[in-house]
Amino acid sequence: MPKPTFAVLLSGCGVFDGSEIQEAVLTLLAIDRAGGNYQCFAPNIAQRNVVNHMTGHPAQETRNVLVESARIARGAIRALTTYDPIAFDALILPGGFGAAKNLSSFALDGANCSIDPETEQAVKATFAAKKPVGAWCISPTILAKVLGKGKLTIGDDPGTAEKIEEMGATHVITRHGAVVVDVQMRIVTTPCYMLESRIGEVADGIEAAIREVFSLVRP
Amino acid sequence: MPKPTFAVLLSGCGVFDGSEIQEAVLTLLAIDRAGGNYQCFAPNIAQRNVVNHMTGHPAQETRNVLVESARIARGAIRALTTYDPIAFDALILPGGFGAAKNLSSFALDGANCSIDPETEQAVKATFAAKKPVGAWCISPTILAKVLGKGKLTIGDDPGTAEKIEEMGATHVITRHGAVVVDVQMRIVTTPCYMLESRIGEVADGIEAAIREVFSLVRP
Repeated sequence: MPKPTFAVLLSGCGVFDGSEIQEAVLTLLAIDRAGGNYQCFAPNIAQRNVVNHMTGHPAQETRNVLVESARIARGAIRALTTYDPIAFDALILPGGFGAAKNLSSFALDGANCSIDPETEQAVKATFAAKKPVGAWCISPTILAKVLGKGKLTIGDDPGTAEKIEEMGATHVITRHGAVVVDVQMRIVTTPCYMLESRIGEVADGIEAAIREVFSLVRP
Repeated sequence: MPKPTFAVLLSGCGVFDGSEIQEAVLTLLAIDRAGGNYQCFAPNIAQRNVVNHMTGHPAQETRNVLVESARIARGAIRALTTYDPIAFDALILPGGFGAAKNLSSFALDGANCSIDPETEQAVKATFAAKKPVGAWCISPTILAKVLGKGKLTIGDDPGTAEKIEEMGATHVITRHGAVVVDVQMRIVTTPCYMLESRIGEVADGIEAAIREVFSLVRP
C-alpha cells in the first residue's frame, strides 16, 4: 500500500505574521514518523503585514505568503491553486497569526471574518471529497467559518471559543496534548500554542492529532 | 538538580540564507524532551543576502540575522553579545547556509573563511569554559576554523571534508543519524541536511547528538 500523503497549508513564516514555525515543522515530523508523505502549499498572496519578531511591532515591509512559507518547506512548496484533494489523503492547517491574518481576517474581524478564497476553496473541496482536515492552534476558526458547524478546539480561550460558537461550530475546552475528533465531519483539532506551552507539549498534541488523522484516512 | 540549559546560536530563518528552520526547531524539541531548557541567541548583524526560497535566487532586500532568527524562537531570543558560557551548560549551532554566510564566510571563502567576531568569541569562550559545543550540518566548519583541530563530521561531502581538514580538524565520514563525539574537545557533530534526508532522519541525528551533549554535561 502506498504511503498516505498529507497536504500541509502554510500561511507565511513566523508566529506573529505567518505560520507558527515550530507547529509547522513538528507537523512535518509527525507525518513522516507516522509513515506518511507530505506536500506543503500556500496561497500566492501578500501578507497582511510584516511583524518584527524581536519587538513585536509592525515593520515597513511587504512579504509574500507563498515565498515566505517556502522557507519552512526548504523550497519544496506549491501554490495553493494547484491543490486537488483527490491527490491527497488529508489536509492539515498548522497555526500562527498567518491563519488569522493571511488565510482569514479572523484576528481583525472575529466571527465576521472573511476567508482567503483559495483557502476556502481548498477546505470546501477537501470536505466534499470526504477527506479529513486537521487544524491546530487558531486554525480551527477557519473551519468554523467555512463549514459553519463541527466540534473542535482551540484550547481554553473564552473569547475565541465564543466567536467559534457564533460561527456555528461547537467548541470543546482542552488542555495540553488533547485532541478533539469530529468523526462525522472528519475534523481533527488540537490547541498547540493557543495554550502557554513548552515545545514538547506542542509536539505531543501534534503527534496525537496526526495519529487521529491517520485513523480517519485508514479506518 | 536544576535542568541543564542550552544556548542555541541561530543565523537567520531559512535554509538558503539563515538557519535551517527544521534543524533549529528539532534541536529545541530534542533539548526539551531530553529534560533541558534552552535560550536562543543570534548576532545583531545584517544577513549576507536574502534568498527567495521559492526560486532559489537572491532577492533585492536586506534582513537582520537577530530579527529573522527571532521568528524561530517565537520572539524569545537574545543578542549574542549577551552570551556568557558560565550561565549555560552547552552551546549548540544548528545548520543552514546562515552558518556559512552570516556566522562565517565559509560558503564563499572555504578554508580561508573569516568568522563573525561575536560567533568566534562565543565558541572560544565556551571551549575555554570546558563546556560542550554541538554543531549540526555545515556548522562544524565554524568549529574547524575557530579551534583549528578536533574530530568532527559534516556527513560525506568530499569537498567540504577536504576544507575541514585544511583548517586543521579531522573529518569523519558519516551517514543518516550518526553522531561524532570528540570527548577530549567536548565537540558533538551530526550531518542532518548535509545528507539528502527525510525530516525524521534529521530528527534522529539531532536527538542522538543532544543525548551525547547531555552525557558530556553530566558524565
